[in-house]
Amino acid sequence: MLGRTNIVSLAEALRLLRKHQPPCPGRVVSVPLEEALNRVCAKDILSPEDLPPYPRSTMDGYAVRARDTFGASEGLPAYLEISGEVQMGEYPETGPSPGTCHTIATGGILPPGTDGVVMLEHTVTVDGQMIEVVKPVAAGDNIINTGDDIRKDGVLLSQGQLLRPQELGLLAGLGIENVIVFGIVRVGIISTGDEIVSFNESPPPGKIRDMNAINLAALVRNANGRPHFHGITHDDEQDLTDMVSEALAANDLVLLSGSSSVGTRDLGERVIEKMGPPGILLHGVAIRPGKPVIIARAADRMIFGLPGHPVSAAVAFDLFVKPVLKQLSGLASDGLPEYRTVDASLMRNLNSTSGRTDFIRIRLEKQDSGEIGAIPVLGKSGALSTMVKAQGYLIIEEHQQGLREGEMVEVRLFD
Amino acid sequence: MLGRTNIVSLAEALRLLRKHQPPCPGRVVSVPLEEALNRVCAKDILSPEDLPPYPRSTMDGYAVRARDTFGASEGLPAYLEISGEVQMGEYPETGPSPGTCHTIATGGILPPGTDGVVMLEHTVTVDGQMIEVVKPVAAGDNIINTGDDIRKDGVLLSQGQLLRPQELGLLAGLGIENVIVFGIVRVGIISTGDEIVSFNESPPPGKIRDMNAINLAALVRNANGRPHFHGITHDDEQDLTDMVSEALAANDLVLLSGSSSVGTRDLGERVIEKMGPPGILLHGVAIRPGKPVIIARAADRMIFGLPGHPVSAAVAFDLFVKPVLKQLSGLASDGLPEYRTVDASLMRNLNSTSGRTDFIRIRLEKQDSGEIGAIPVLGKSGALSTMVKAQGYLIIEEHQQGLREGEMVEVRLFD
Repeated sequence: MLGRTNIVSLAEALRLLRKHQPPCPGRVVSVPLEEALNRVCAKDILSPEDLPPYPRSTMDGYAVRARDTFGASEGLPAYLEISGEVQMGEYPETGPSPGTCHTIATGGILPPGTDGVVMLEHTVTVDGQMIEVVKPVAAGDNIINTGDDIRKDGVLLSQGQLLRPQELGLLAGLGIENVIVFGIVRVGIISTGDEIVSFNESPPPGKIRDMNAINLAALVRNANGRPHFHGITHDDEQDLTDMVSEALAANDLVLLSGSSSVGTRDLGERVIEKMGPPGILLHGVAIRPGKPVIIARAADRMIFGLPGHPVSAAVAFDLFVKPVLKQLSGLASDGLPEYRTVDASLMRNLNSTSGRTDFIRIRLEKQDSGEIGAIPVLGKSGALSTMVKAQGYLIIEEHQQGLREGEMVEVRLFD
Repeated sequence: MLGRTNIVSLAEALRLLRKHQPPCPGRVVSVPLEEALNRVCAKDILSPEDLPPYPRSTMDGYAVRARDTFGASEGLPAYLEISGEVQMGEYPETGPSPGTCHTIATGGILPPGTDGVVMLEHTVTVDGQMIEVVKPVAAGDNIINTGDDIRKDGVLLSQGQLLRPQELGLLAGLGIENVIVFGIVRVGIISTGDEIVSFNESPPPGKIRDMNAINLAALVRNANGRPHFHGITHDDEQDLTDMVSEALAANDLVLLSGSSSVGTRDLGERVIEKMGPPGILLHGVAIRPGKPVIIARAADRMIFGLPGHPVSAAVAFDLFVKPVLKQLSGLASDGLPEYRTVDASLMRNLNSTSGRTDFIRIRLEKQDSGEIGAIPVLGKSGALSTMVKAQGYLIIEEHQQGLREGEMVEVRLFD
């Protein structure tokens, strides 16, 4: 047997990756709230005030003393005079006297002396001045008290939390206009290979356009990273060394595309080893497609050599680069599944070689039965069109010999 | 019973919405490939050329005439002289003579006369000049032929397809530098209510900061829309009329936040009806939270009146606004689940009122058993902090009385 040596299993590759991947570099930046969506909170934020600042109604109805409604029922309603109205946006200085109530809308501030709100639906108006309450309330019913939502000086958001729409809303509600977030992970991309020209050039015979730089940049963007394309380098050791050095200095992570094919493989390995220890962690994983991946680390930067085939590159990105990007982003682990999945019924038999993890592209199609069918998209691993037809992929584990038609399978959806 | 009338079930609300929602407005724009990620293809794209343009190797190995390897085995290998090498990036003008082979790398162009590639792994080198082939190949093995990936003039991408990383890679590979996409859906946002001040103002007693505008803008962005905030209007009919008219003229869709609370409810209804037919489709849905939603259409624009409570607003956005945004974006339906879901084990009993669909916020937590536990985040519906603690929500259907601890439930994750 010639060919690649030192090929490791997927499990071993993931173990090595977890062991060696560097932590979040901890660069922080302050951004206005309007630009903070999907950024990662870099330090705990304490609440500057109570939320709500006053007790408020959570229903449309009448602000009352709860004890005035005690025992009320359809048969024996409590009668309360309407002695006023809470205006939205006004702080009520005076409240109703005992035995009377004030009209209040959702969000209105509870007037002094009252401790609950009777919902409109549980009242009957006798005339403009008087209501019948047909269901009692307890103190605290249908109101939200001062600080019930957030206490002053309580931890509002923790370091590592993703800023989703609701986090931004909460910060706005407390008047926090800027937020300290971790820097977006910078990812350098280098295309390699004598046969590659830029996608906006017309390739002479024998050359092909670079499809990987744009594909990888988009994968990086979808994973909340910031791609920077450093260019195409041909198979020249000095050029590649210079470009990788430059990319390492300017980014948190570097992706070499195509560097693991036979022409540039040794070159890629040599150049990566020059970048300093610990160097190459692995070269080759027992997966198909995606086998000829290089994973390396130089000081606190990861370097990935991704296969030139776009399909292989996409699988390797999903498996190895995404988790590193996530850790570098500073996002705290939430223990949830990393992938969006759909359960589907496999529409044909699939064979697989034991000792290798296979990734099968899948097109999903709703069947007449209402069930979702998983249709394998077969084709050469170099065929990008198979990726375009697919919505996701399924995994045939190392120990499995294949899968049978009709089996329920878990399909990982592409982002 | 006082209170709202004409409340419809969730199913009826969704039926009305599907019946009345307008199609994609069909604005198109040409964008460079680097800016086309997650846009929607607006017209079919035909391939300008065959991909690959020449037959290429998909493996590292030797380009051969397949018949020269016929019957080869470990015991009886075929001997082939290495008579040349395919250089990456070069178009081979001459090929090996019968009985000989050329070294070729993955991606190399098949030299004239050859019709297959023997993998490196299935050969033994005798010396620098000669190999033993220990496994035969058939014509076409380990190569991808001209046009195997994409045929010239074949449909590359169809109208309505989302431009994912792989679609961009494919377009780059074919030298397509710009792509016609649908315009991003423009969503106007108006905050209403006498009690609301901008989040960057210090609210006087009785007023609160606007948390909805920022929350809704972020929800719109995450759904690939472009939010435009038109401002805060107090409960003045002329102001609100002017602002809604302006927002309708400038956007594909308008969101009014807070307009369905009692203070502004009639006002919101009146103003929306003024915008023209067909007008209000429904006011009030039997869901909790989120009940006081208004769904309306004026000419070809949808108007949503969303509850002022941030939690209710988020639920109403997810249920009603997102599907409309998706249709307006021009995205073709792929028949896949609209939501990212996780199956989890419910960690406590939940009661519910029949006849109403309940949305319970859920925090997910990995249990010692490895199972994912769904922990209901209980709290007042006005409490935004409950949204911050939650990763998603579960639905208790109208006909269900509740759910039992230990039941497996499907949790919809927030985006």
